[in-house]
Amino acid sequence: MQLEYDSFQPQYKTPFGAVPQQTPVQFALNVKTSATIGQVTLCIVHDGQWDAEHLLPMTAITATRYQVNFTPTQAGLYFYYFQVSTSRDTVFYGCVDGGYGGRGVQYARREQVQMYQLTTLAAVETLPKWYREGVAYQIFVDRFYNGNPDGHVNAPKPNSFIYGRASDRPLYVRGAGQEILRWDFFGGNLRGIEAKIPYLKKLGVTILYLTPIFQATSNHRYDTGDYLKIDPVLGDLSDFDHLVHALHQVGMRLILDGVFNHVGVDSRYFNRSGHYDTVGAAQARTSPYYPWFTFINYPTEYDSWWGISDLPTVDKENKAYRDFIFGAADSVIDYWTSRGVDGWRLDVADELPDDFIAGIRQALDHYPDKVLIGEVWEDASHKLAYGQRRHYLEGGGLQAVMNYPLRRLIIHVLTGTMAPVEWWRDLMTLKENYPKTTFQFNFNNIGSHDTPRILTMLQEDMARLRLAVGMLLTLPGVPCLYYGDEAKMTGGKDPDNRAFYPWANADLAEIRVVEQWTHWRQNHPWLNTANFAPFYLADYGIGYVYWQDQQQVLVVINVTTMTHEITAAACQLDVVPAQLATAIKRRLVGQALSGNQLQLIENFT
Amino acid sequence: MQLEYDSFQPQYKTPFGAVPQQTPVQFALNVKTSATIGQVTLCIVHDGQWDAEHLLPMTAITATRYQVNFTPTQAGLYFYYFQVSTSRDTVFYGCVDGGYGGRGVQYARREQVQMYQLTTLAAVETLPKWYREGVAYQIFVDRFYNGNPDGHVNAPKPNSFIYGRASDRPLYVRGAGQEILRWDFFGGNLRGIEAKIPYLKKLGVTILYLTPIFQATSNHRYDTGDYLKIDPVLGDLSDFDHLVHALHQVGMRLILDGVFNHVGVDSRYFNRSGHYDTVGAAQARTSPYYPWFTFINYPTEYDSWWGISDLPTVDKENKAYRDFIFGAADSVIDYWTSRGVDGWRLDVADELPDDFIAGIRQALDHYPDKVLIGEVWEDASHKLAYGQRRHYLEGGGLQAVMNYPLRRLIIHVLTGTMAPVEWWRDLMTLKENYPKTTFQFNFNNIGSHDTPRILTMLQEDMARLRLAVGMLLTLPGVPCLYYGDEAKMTGGKDPDNRAFYPWANADLAEIRVVEQWTHWRQNHPWLNTANFAPFYLADYGIGYVYWQDQQQVLVVINVTTMTHEITAAACQLDVVPAQLATAIKRRLVGQALSGNQLQLIENFT
Repeated sequence: MQLEYDSFQPQYKTPFGAVPQQTPVQFALNVKTSATIGQVTLCIVHDGQWDAEHLLPMTAITATRYQVNFTPTQAGLYFYYFQVSTSRDTVFYGCVDGGYGGRGVQYARREQVQMYQLTTLAAVETLPKWYREGVAYQIFVDRFYNGNPDGHVNAPKPNSFIYGRASDRPLYVRGAGQEILRWDFFGGNLRGIEAKIPYLKKLGVTILYLTPIFQATSNHRYDTGDYLKIDPVLGDLSDFDHLVHALHQVGMRLILDGVFNHVGVDSRYFNRSGHYDTVGAAQARTSPYYPWFTFINYPTEYDSWWGISDLPTVDKENKAYRDFIFGAADSVIDYWTSRGVDGWRLDVADELPDDFIAGIRQALDHYPDKVLIGEVWEDASHKLAYGQRRHYLEGGGLQAVMNYPLRRLIIHVLTGTMAPVEWWRDLMTLKENYPKTTFQFNFNNIGSHDTPRILTMLQEDMARLRLAVGMLLTLPGVPCLYYGDEAKMTGGKDPDNRAFYPWANADLAEIRVVEQWTHWRQNHPWLNTANFAPFYLADYGIGYVYWQDQQQVLVVINVTTMTHEITAAACQLDVVPAQLATAIKRRLVGQALSGNQLQLIENFT
Repeated sequence: MQLEYDSFQPQYKTPFGAVPQQTPVQFALNVKTSATIGQVTLCIVHDGQWDAEHLLPMTAITATRYQVNFTPTQAGLYFYYFQVSTSRDTVFYGCVDGGYGGRGVQYARREQVQMYQLTTLAAVETLPKWYREGVAYQIFVDRFYNGNPDGHVNAPKPNSFIYGRASDRPLYVRGAGQEILRWDFFGGNLRGIEAKIPYLKKLGVTILYLTPIFQATSNHRYDTGDYLKIDPVLGDLSDFDHLVHALHQVGMRLILDGVFNHVGVDSRYFNRSGHYDTVGAAQARTSPYYPWFTFINYPTEYDSWWGISDLPTVDKENKAYRDFIFGAADSVIDYWTSRGVDGWRLDVADELPDDFIAGIRQALDHYPDKVLIGEVWEDASHKLAYGQRRHYLEGGGLQAVMNYPLRRLIIHVLTGTMAPVEWWRDLMTLKENYPKTTFQFNFNNIGSHDTPRILTMLQEDMARLRLAVGMLLTLPGVPCLYYGDEAKMTGGKDPDNRAFYPWANADLAEIRVVEQWTHWRQNHPWLNTANFAPFYLADYGIGYVYWQDQQQVLVVINVTTMTHEITAAACQLDVVPAQLATAIKRRLVGQALSGNQLQLIENFT
């Protein structure tokens, strides 16, 4: 018996990918067998409701083609497979092991079946134009630029170190138990960012995403000390207002990092060392902040993020905390958004309950044109965190996530640790699983403060760096550059990936290359809503095509170091509409693609 | 049989203590026995010439008193004991176990005898007046004061850390193997010292001793990188010249730290990392510096100080090196001394051959009124280093050493870990062993960059701190304060003892107390050449008396916390001349001395 299904293809499933709830989805299965076909069934179940599987008999349209419509009534995930009973046996058809869409495989027994995912949305998100058409740039603030003309560091913290030179490699100052003894600072600050607006503008950046800027002890400030105060090392409220104003003046937008799962042990709220003038939770059970935390043994043992005692976890169910962060009129979200912040990136979104995220979103939606992004490391459409399915992207929650899966695809295919066909399948699976707006406007990166730098990941191969930048700027999603990647910064894992921007010796030629890409991207805003299909070239190349109305953009990349002459057989254009596929082949076949060449072809039909 | 001898008393040995060679020394021994006395012998041997013991028969002056003169013909140490043969037996008389002078003990067998020391000098040193009458102040330069008006640190080094706040505690930044990963700086500099001259002047300081100031990698700069360059972190040559000029203008003098046993691995001479523009010894065997070092496996294994590979040891026998440091006309010693340096303190003198030290001394003696001090931690009169007897103080070498033994006596007697009688015996032994000029003008301290701070050693007891400062300023020798001890700085072992001077919150009242002592000392220059005798008060007090012509100064200190009424029996005045002892008793007996009281009485006869 031969069963044919391909979730990527409209002849088998339509519409493609995620759908809003109440949208009928048509499934079709081809069954080729010499036996007599009995029952052909679409078996579909809503996530978690495993004892309420829908068994939908499929109707024979032709001798070999069976079809059924299913209308999801709930947001969230559905999982499905097919069951075919013949006079001879019963077989099952599900997706390839690993949860990939596209063609599947037959399974002999029900309990072996891997199920396809159908993502269903409560609502379709709309995202602001500035975000949709933006090019973002992530700044680890301490490491970007010091805007004080004499180079002094604003208000160094007690028991901290300042690097002797901007060119020093970052270093954790640790004790025998690996604990941080002193935090280390280069002295980048808000005025420094403002001073570099012309540079960023020229680079084509339209959105800044800043790692945390509120008062804290560390240089990364993910250990918030006071949510309502700019860290004095970075400047003051007037520096912040000045920066926001200056950004908006040139049409740039600002995304802040919201760290709401935990606070610093030295914070206005926990206040273990009494550095703040409040009565902190660690100081007295009568503290107004006491109920925010979960103590095991007061005051020394308490819930903390990943067991790091410097980062006590806040109880996100606590009403007072919710009010403080997003619920009250003068909440943290409100306070800063009303001062001009254009969007928020939620740190460790996996740790925040869905309704906490929804609460932030609602607070944000009081303002026009804001965006809410989350830190999620995997395919966020089906993320299970702490045993719970997350509903980040189904509407009313996050509007995008940091697209680390795309980063991995780019790095792996460029370093040869992933075959072009796998790259294609993985990318198509993301396209299928994510809401269309997420796939189109996800927050893409090829590196962040939490990963080794892209140039280091690519073994410092400049040709590959150019390909990675080219892909970041031409693939669907909002590209976000990590500061200094354009200046050929290298760096392994944290803290090596957080060196100071090499203003004194940045490679201007390379920066020009990045600028060309950002400007190209910005000159093609239609790409953001265009049709998109990836493909691959045998075992040596990848490609993708955008089309809308009469316009097309075709990108092909030779991911090897050798020249390949493109043959018709090499062109794997499965998900490209036939007419377009023909045009692509006509354009490519017979052409030689040099090693590590990226070719961008516009309007080739 | 009863033998009586006391090397501290003129009736037994005269002159007291160390003598220039060719000075006759008279020894007398009292022998009381019912047996018939046969031979009474002074057995005396020059250090190392153990098979050439002089056996000098002593002459009976009375029935019980035997006497002999001995004239040492060689500089260095002599060791002696007595042998008495009677009709009944032969006994020996030597010093108390531990090498103390004063009264000795009888030994039954020759091989048990501990011998007395007689120090003999090649020449009697004269020391410059500015040094003899000075009050010194040791500055760990990075930790004193930053003279830049805006507080910036001059030329921070690559891969170094600057402390965020002046009040931060110093910290070594170490790796897993305890190696230093980054050197840490506060940013004290030469202009800072110059800016604080008024402060130092008011404090009564007349001599500055600076830890190394030549270019190096570390913050302490004992790892010299370039002997002919001021470390840019501290300033430049013009800052140095300016400082010297400013000091001399107000009558102050400057002692530099000469570190000539080893250099830094990153130095103009070794140049392992190629930071210098020379060809260093580690870079090529053809390097002019290659013969300076002793390689075991070129270039990775080499002799280094205490096995610390960052500090390659220089071969002090190497002629070129000797010329460079002191032999040539433009030697290191010459270069800086001709720019106005008034004296040198030789680091790790134990590692420098006697003739190397003598060479430095000769270079220095080309200039008038210079002084050469050495770092020696023990009684330098008989120091054995690496199996060799050292001849630091016998003339033509060092003129003084850092008087750590005196520091130990002060701390131990004040903390109750040494009885007053032991304090007296130890101090008398130092007085006896050292050349008179050394005892009078040794470089005294109660703490340095190599020891925990005095206040910490004294368990932060302020009453004891005042006693220690009082003793430092009233005992024989040139007092050297360690920067900030006057400001109640605390600190355990290195690096905690090297915190930044607390300019913002120094205790001015305490500083006034130190000032009173320094000014008192400076108003009594006659003390430096006066007669001096220590004594003790039973088990609770110590004292000392200076006398010269009609002047006297008497110091008594109750080292306990309880009040004691002084009795005649408590007064142990063995080495004080009888008439003076009577006067002291008349003055003290019946008087109550409060706990931790220091009483200073002038001209009491």
